[in-house]
Amino acid sequence: MTIHILGISGSLRRNSTNRALLRTAQAVAPPDVTIEIADLHDIPLFNVDVEAEGMPEAVLAFRDRIRAADALIFATPEYNWSIPGVLKNAIDWASRKGLDPSSPLDGKPAAIMSAAGMSGGMRAQMHLREILQHNDLRVLNRPSLMIARAAQYFEDGRLVDPNLRARLARQLAALRDWALQFHPELAQRLETAVSANGYDR
Amino acid sequence: MTIHILGISGSLRRNSTNRALLRTAQAVAPPDVTIEIADLHDIPLFNVDVEAEGMPEAVLAFRDRIRAADALIFATPEYNWSIPGVLKNAIDWASRKGLDPSSPLDGKPAAIMSAAGMSGGMRAQMHLREILQHNDLRVLNRPSLMIARAAQYFEDGRLVDPNLRARLARQLAALRDWALQFHPELAQRLETAVSANGYDR
Amino acid sequence: MTIHILGISGSLRRNSTNRALLRTAQAVAPPDVTIEIADLHDIPLFNVDVEAEGMPEAVLAFRDRIRAADALIFATPEYNWSIPGVLKNAIDWASRKGLDPSSPLDGKPAAIMSAAGMSGGMRAQMHLREILQHNDLRVLNRPSLMIARAAQYFEDGRLVDPNLRARLARQLAALRDWALQFHPELAQRLETAVSANGYDR
Amino acid sequence: MTIHILGISGSLRRNSTNRALLRTAQAVAPPDVTIEIADLHDIPLFNVDVEAEGMPEAVLAFRDRIRAADALIFATPEYNWSIPGVLKNAIDWASRKGLDPSSPLDGKPAAIMSAAGMSGGMRAQMHLREILQHNDLRVLNRPSLMIARAAQYFEDGRLVDPNLRARLARQLAALRDWALQFHPELAQRLETAVSANGYDR
Repeated sequence: MTIHILGISGSLRRNSTNRALLRTAQAVAPPDVTIEIADLHDIPLFNVDVEAEGMPEAVLAFRDRIRAADALIFATPEYNWSIPGVLKNAIDWASRKGLDPSSPLDGKPAAIMSAAGMSGGMRAQMHLREILQHNDLRVLNRPSLMIARAAQYFEDGRLVDPNLRARLARQLAALRDWALQFHPELAQRLETAVSANGYDR
Repeated sequence: MTIHILGISGSLRRNSTNRALLRTAQAVAPPDVTIEIADLHDIPLFNVDVEAEGMPEAVLAFRDRIRAADALIFATPEYNWSIPGVLKNAIDWASRKGLDPSSPLDGKPAAIMSAAGMSGGMRAQMHLREILQHNDLRVLNRPSLMIARAAQYFEDGRLVDPNLRARLARQLAALRDWALQFHPELAQRLETAVSANGYDR
Repeated sequence: MTIHILGISGSLRRNSTNRALLRTAQAVAPPDVTIEIADLHDIPLFNVDVEAEGMPEAVLAFRDRIRAADALIFATPEYNWSIPGVLKNAIDWASRKGLDPSSPLDGKPAAIMSAAGMSGGMRAQMHLREILQHNDLRVLNRPSLMIARAAQYFEDGRLVDPNLRARLARQLAALRDWALQFHPELAQRLETAVSANGYDR
Repeated sequence: MTIHILGISGSLRRNSTNRALLRTAQAVAPPDVTIEIADLHDIPLFNVDVEAEGMPEAVLAFRDRIRAADALIFATPEYNWSIPGVLKNAIDWASRKGLDPSSPLDGKPAAIMSAAGMSGGMRAQMHLREILQHNDLRVLNRPSLMIARAAQYFEDGRLVDPNLRARLARQLAALRDWALQFHPELAQRLETAVSANGYDR
């Protein structure tokens, strides 16, 4: 058994470095962590009138995948000193309670990473933390991951820089430990003890 | 001749109080100010791959209307402690330079208003200011307009509270004066002198 | 044995409502929680040159009290849409590593409350969260506590409004549980099991 | 006659790079701009009780210098992802109205620069903009000036990097033009027309 993470990319671009970051995360994750990548292409613009007629299929599927995940990763570029509207729109849909007492996002452990521009996405990360706090997500403080001038570190849709790959692996291990802190019952799901897997924070 | 303002609502909802705020703005604006309301329904999700094949019609039309405006008003709800993804997505498209040296947004005078939740949209306004700063928009500081628990002040798709209507009118007059400060040539366009029209800041 | 919390007021005012909030916290805290109130009057302006000659006594004492605490509470007014310089200055001193590998603040569980102006201190809380994140403090998301137009709820230096007192008690219980999540060893210190004390989140 | 700017450093350190930035600003400013540097060493911790007994001398002098200035420059390091408490404390004092209908800060044109850490002070600048907006300061959007890993660019208390000196000069010229936009009457004070002085934005 493993801890299951849903990775959400803020960019729809085919050659997105943030999507590439999530693919690399799948490769460097601790052995007791699995990562699935969400697709936001079919999430329509949020509209309360549309919601009132029933949430669209793509939205329902996205919400189900969030609900099924033990933790979330947001990998996001920075547009106009904030997160992309595409990502915010997906969060807007996911944050709705519908008929439930809480949204699928409520209380989820989460980590943020960004490959973006000259600053590495610092401003986007600040906004995203505030946005996620609204739904009581427990966002990992450290280690952070911001990749500036990203193109040079990627090749064939993968992060290839060894130093950055190691930092990514450390963030994933920290997210796993962070998720265990909030959900001790997950520890029993893991085949081997967390302390035995050779990853440190 | 008048100063021409484009009003942009952050909500797609038919009965949106923020759209109602823009309609009311049309009614209470100073006589030398005209306000047009943009429609974001047809703006697709931003995607660099789509942009590379040519900006969609709805995006081009939106950008043209921004370019033609002397100033902008953003009327926005607050979703998840920020602006709606729908509004951010429209700004993401508008902020692209395309073949021009600057985007249609660059340097525009602008004002922000919000009808939202318990706080009136305070957090959404903070985020929006930061977002707009990226494109060098000159956002009016004062007077601010945040309407909390908004439903009670609206009727038949219009703001009916006399006090709030007066505050809205004052903000519009201040935006006009603010736009004139950056574009003194606009003053010559106006039939009557700004100082003679009976509105004060 | 109890969980020990250090309360830090952002205001030096004798009749500060935020100091009154901390005094009330002492009265309504769960029986397994003790709260001590820090005094910032003697903390000088931060200056690296002064630090180089040795941290002042008042600073050393403040840092010791932080180190000895299991969790922190920040009770702060809002000045100029942020936290008071007085509080930020104390945090600047506390955040220094000195000869240690980490600062006294590092990794501490913390909660934020505010009695402030018309908005209850919403902007101050946003800034404070970002500031505290720098030192990896684990700031409680919920329940939040923002008291607007505060004077009416206080009497003789105490919060007297029963509803707000109950909300304060709930936040304190949540902070205790939050601290236990990060430091399970604290649970053994408590005389009675956390689940048996009749407080809920 | 000249435009008179007050420079405020967020650091008290003798060898502060931000103070050095202000000294360099004095050297590279356009000929029609004079820059005076404020000293915050003697500004005590803000306390409403102290204020009630009369503002301290150092505070009164600081407020007078702000009032006499046509524009302000804030040169600030970044401490704990925000501005130093020392700078915030000085702003807290300056923002008080006292017996006047407005504070000395109200409506002042201002620019922000920072020499700070790995990010150049990006987060400190975001906080400072929000703080200054409370008093309706008109903060210049562009050009921005953030100097990361600053030590290498300074020598003998001066910024020596030619590229950064040129960027500083451009920001100062832009601040002068920005101040003229809000106070056209200043233009008449200048000996030579702004357009003739050879500086561009």
